[in-house]
Amino acid sequence: MSLLVVGSIALDTVETPFGRHADILGGSATFFSISASLFTRPRLVGVVGSDFPPEHIKALQKKKIDTAGIEYADGQTFRWNGRYTGDMNSAETLSVHLNVFGSFDPKVPDKFRDSSLVFLANGSTSIQMKVLNQVPKAKFIMVDTMNLWIETEREMLIELIKKANGLILNNHEAAMLTGKHNLIAAAKEILAYGLDVLVIKKGEHGAMLFDRKGNFFAIPAFPLDNVKDPTGAGDSFAGGFMGYLDKAGKTDFNTMKKALVYGTMTASFAVEDFSLNRLLKATPGQLKTRAEKFKKMFTL
Amino acid sequence: MSLLVVGSIALDTVETPFGRHADILGGSATFFSISASLFTRPRLVGVVGSDFPPEHIKALQKKKIDTAGIEYADGQTFRWNGRYTGDMNSAETLSVHLNVFGSFDPKVPDKFRDSSLVFLANGSTSIQMKVLNQVPKAKFIMVDTMNLWIETEREMLIELIKKANGLILNNHEAAMLTGKHNLIAAAKEILAYGLDVLVIKKGEHGAMLFDRKGNFFAIPAFPLDNVKDPTGAGDSFAGGFMGYLDKAGKTDFNTMKKALVYGTMTASFAVEDFSLNRLLKATPGQLKTRAEKFKKMFTL
Repeated sequence: MSLLVVGSIALDTVETPFGRHADILGGSATFFSISASLFTRPRLVGVVGSDFPPEHIKALQKKKIDTAGIEYADGQTFRWNGRYTGDMNSAETLSVHLNVFGSFDPKVPDKFRDSSLVFLANGSTSIQMKVLNQVPKAKFIMVDTMNLWIETEREMLIELIKKANGLILNNHEAAMLTGKHNLIAAAKEILAYGLDVLVIKKGEHGAMLFDRKGNFFAIPAFPLDNVKDPTGAGDSFAGGFMGYLDKAGKTDFNTMKKALVYGTMTASFAVEDFSLNRLLKATPGQLKTRAEKFKKMFTL
Repeated sequence: MSLLVVGSIALDTVETPFGRHADILGGSATFFSISASLFTRPRLVGVVGSDFPPEHIKALQKKKIDTAGIEYADGQTFRWNGRYTGDMNSAETLSVHLNVFGSFDPKVPDKFRDSSLVFLANGSTSIQMKVLNQVPKAKFIMVDTMNLWIETEREMLIELIKKANGLILNNHEAAMLTGKHNLIAAAKEILAYGLDVLVIKKGEHGAMLFDRKGNFFAIPAFPLDNVKDPTGAGDSFAGGFMGYLDKAGKTDFNTMKKALVYGTMTASFAVEDFSLNRLLKATPGQLKTRAEKFKKMFTL
């Protein structure tokens, strides 16, 4: 198969109880593609400004990510400034400057148009919508989103969900989208929009997988007492999930169950350090070792 | 083996989005023992007032619970009045009247003194302490508690934990006891008090099991979109957990993993209706059917 991701590439300034780091590599498509690169050779579509350090592009390429879809625009790269305190389960956004991402008009290069797996990483719903007719061979389109778009582009988002195969949300977003507090009830309502698959991420509480046939699978999170920076955990989760599906070459429920395990693994690496520092160092061997250890933690 | 529980027997008034019910059967020892009765014949020590309906005692006896340790005191039965709203993850206490439970001096009947498994259900730490020297044959003592006692009897509680084998807490209580937001870090600190086993309940997010040797096991909750009344979920969880251990006749980590599954099952029945209505109707066959279904939900 072949995996395409369209989303943000950012320079983040992040503050957690473990320190503050300015202008570090971030963005939904970045975390996704580096995580997916542990399984396959993802194709990336995104935009950066003239201030974007060339060594970050080299780091992506070193991971065999096809960067042919990165557009270089005049202006500054998307910047996000956030802070995590307490249980670090959610970020306080201190500032956002969309910059070149604000006027991003995604163009899927010809050589990416045969992609069979497509991930519309977190970004405005209108940007996500523009990708749909550029991937005519797509067999499985998965959508991510966030509270901002649920609030401001709700109707278009539901339109997009109806056209997609899968949706990945966190538990707060699922409640916000449906107005239902019970996660199982919320999931049923979201699936009824016409989705094949729904993944609900719950941070330290693990993840759940639902399909339209009524199949259900749930696993805990990998236990970590050294979470340094949760930024990108969800994107990394999605990257491991979709990367595994691409490698496996199928999207049946049993394969998705394993993909959920690998999404948990890439997310667990992501949060162990700031930015992509830990993920960039992760090897397939480390991934395998951690996955074997993890599976035992929920096997009777 | 033989399982003893000491705790509260109450008449609750409970309000949830699904209705309001006054003076219904409740209490930590009640939920615990009825859940445990699906596996074994628990022995109950508690106190009720002269207003306690005799049919409740009969209901316990019908479940083969040994009620010889129930003391009949002058005065009113312990009353709790609470309300659940929104995600129903925590109760708002509207009023508490300890009544006869306030001056409860637990006396373990002679014929219960050989109990090998002991559960000190939620109640004041000083009441729990008084049980310790009345169970000389105890091989495995497990303690439950709540935010109130963590706040008001913290030192005595830590003293009690040091004398017990196991502790069962919810995630909020674990954070409160340690001041640590990261649950894994909190668990490590609590285990270091000198416990063999720690269970952390997370409501709709499942449960985690830790032991002093570093073993870890975690499972999701049973998916329910019809939670009517969460009262007693934690006590029912503990009842299924300890009831299974008693039936299995051992307390090694592998047996505890299975016990965690059965605790999840009894808790899932408990919340499907008010008071003990659903649990009282649960049969070993229903328990087995649900457990088989549940195990598949986290089996790769």
